[in-house]
Amino acid sequence: MALVVVGSVAYDGVETPHGKVERMLGGACTYISLAASYFTEVGIVAVVGEDFDPADRAFLARRKIGLEGLETKPGKTFFWSGVYSQDMNDRTTLRTDLNVFAEFQPVLPASYRSQPYLLLGNIQPALQQSVRAQMSALRLAGGDTMNYWIQDYREELLAAIRHWDFLLINDGEARMLSGEHNLRRAARAIARMGPSTLVIKRGEHGALLFHQDRLFAAPGYLLDDVCDPTGAGDCFAGGFIGYLSQGQAEWQDLCRAVIYGSVMGSFCCERFGVERFRTLTRAEIDARFEEFRRITEF
Amino acid sequence: MALVVVGSVAYDGVETPHGKVERMLGGACTYISLAASYFTEVGIVAVVGEDFDPADRAFLARRKIGLEGLETKPGKTFFWSGVYSQDMNDRTTLRTDLNVFAEFQPVLPASYRSQPYLLLGNIQPALQQSVRAQMSALRLAGGDTMNYWIQDYREELLAAIRHWDFLLINDGEARMLSGEHNLRRAARAIARMGPSTLVIKRGEHGALLFHQDRLFAAPGYLLDDVCDPTGAGDCFAGGFIGYLSQGQAEWQDLCRAVIYGSVMGSFCCERFGVERFRTLTRAEIDARFEEFRRITEF
Repeated sequence: MALVVVGSVAYDGVETPHGKVERMLGGACTYISLAASYFTEVGIVAVVGEDFDPADRAFLARRKIGLEGLETKPGKTFFWSGVYSQDMNDRTTLRTDLNVFAEFQPVLPASYRSQPYLLLGNIQPALQQSVRAQMSALRLAGGDTMNYWIQDYREELLAAIRHWDFLLINDGEARMLSGEHNLRRAARAIARMGPSTLVIKRGEHGALLFHQDRLFAAPGYLLDDVCDPTGAGDCFAGGFIGYLSQGQAEWQDLCRAVIYGSVMGSFCCERFGVERFRTLTRAEIDARFEEFRRITEF
Repeated sequence: MALVVVGSVAYDGVETPHGKVERMLGGACTYISLAASYFTEVGIVAVVGEDFDPADRAFLARRKIGLEGLETKPGKTFFWSGVYSQDMNDRTTLRTDLNVFAEFQPVLPASYRSQPYLLLGNIQPALQQSVRAQMSALRLAGGDTMNYWIQDYREELLAAIRHWDFLLINDGEARMLSGEHNLRRAARAIARMGPSTLVIKRGEHGALLFHQDRLFAAPGYLLDDVCDPTGAGDCFAGGFIGYLSQGQAEWQDLCRAVIYGSVMGSFCCERFGVERFRTLTRAEIDARFEEFRRITEF
């Protein structure tokens, strides 16, 4: 194992203009680890209930995702459901049942603690911080957060990200966190908070990478059909950290990691939930990486 | 001369979060021709009133813009004023006084008619069509339009663009014109209407180029400060056609033209109105072109 991923493993109910699925495997940790599993060895830290389907566990295991840190607790697995707008740029949450996730206190198996890479999915900053503190030989650590923590848990979040190497958020979150509308200034402000690398995920509009006053801009991938955008941001994070977990993290590596993140996010949208990862191959991933090269070269 | 530009020459009143200018030189034809003047010889076709300031005429002449087709009519010059939202992504029109522009019937000077390049600014499609019909040796022609013409003058617009080589519009306009939400499909539908090249301008999110099922994606340029976005889309068009007017229009030339368009649009936003073009040099333009290369290479 090389990469530890922490976050939610959940069941999701999703409705998009392309259809409706009542209940399927989801959760940030699931998407991140699936995407990262194409690049490196991954171990997850998460909690599920007694209703967690052995078939879903087997699916993760087939992708060689380490499940030693996947705890099963009495009760039900985290459930979320939502419905997307016609253009899929907005979604409305219908239900959030935290279930066993409400009491999640991540404790890392001994074998995880000496791993070099850490991706903290979007959970309460204090939990992110507790996981990071359990790791003793980190080479690169970072993660995701959201408007809720930025607004209502600001001090706790600032205490957590102070130790992060990178932060992955969207435009609105970067603006909210930094208090700057302009993204260049927002990036400078966020660098002063700790993370020397900032990746701004802009959905269909691609992603921006800021690092030591350098900028890289990746376009969004134009799919013929976006089936279900759920998990795309997490798959971006998984591709990003997965690629970096292979070794170097120089400027060019960071840029390529952003492209691999974009690639993984784009595949995620092609089917409902995690379906695309049942068939996706590394060859398809590398072909799309090259396609990104073609659409950006001039 | 090589490039003919048709559209409005106007006075604008603009308010943005950075300030307010009661009256300044503006209009699509003005912005397009200023931007294109850094790449090729330009002649404009437009109409102004007796109030048109000789200093503004002199400014255009200093940029070596041909004014033989700039007609002066009794009455006042087209006046538009608007105010931008705090994030400058929306604007509200306060006043539109068409004045002499209401009766604009573009008649091309003889010297214009044999020119090879034509950029039709956003005016009534029938006028765009009448200008195109006056030109006898076109190598490349295209232009801009807007939601108003797409919705209320659809047949007239379709009759005009049928003869265009390229169309420059934004996401929403492309979706409205094609009836397709997905931009790849929208591009295919628009290609069937005539223009084999489609450029979708996405403001701060860059631009997309579609040509014979090939795609190129340019990022937006991240300015430290956007002072006034008025005219940015027209400057994009000016940089795009200006670059192409230098010669070839192969795939790589089209991609580079999109980058030069983005460069010119970005400079436009740095000052109110056309101010930036009073000092801008070709060296600055080429330096920013190279900066686009750096921020997109991986």
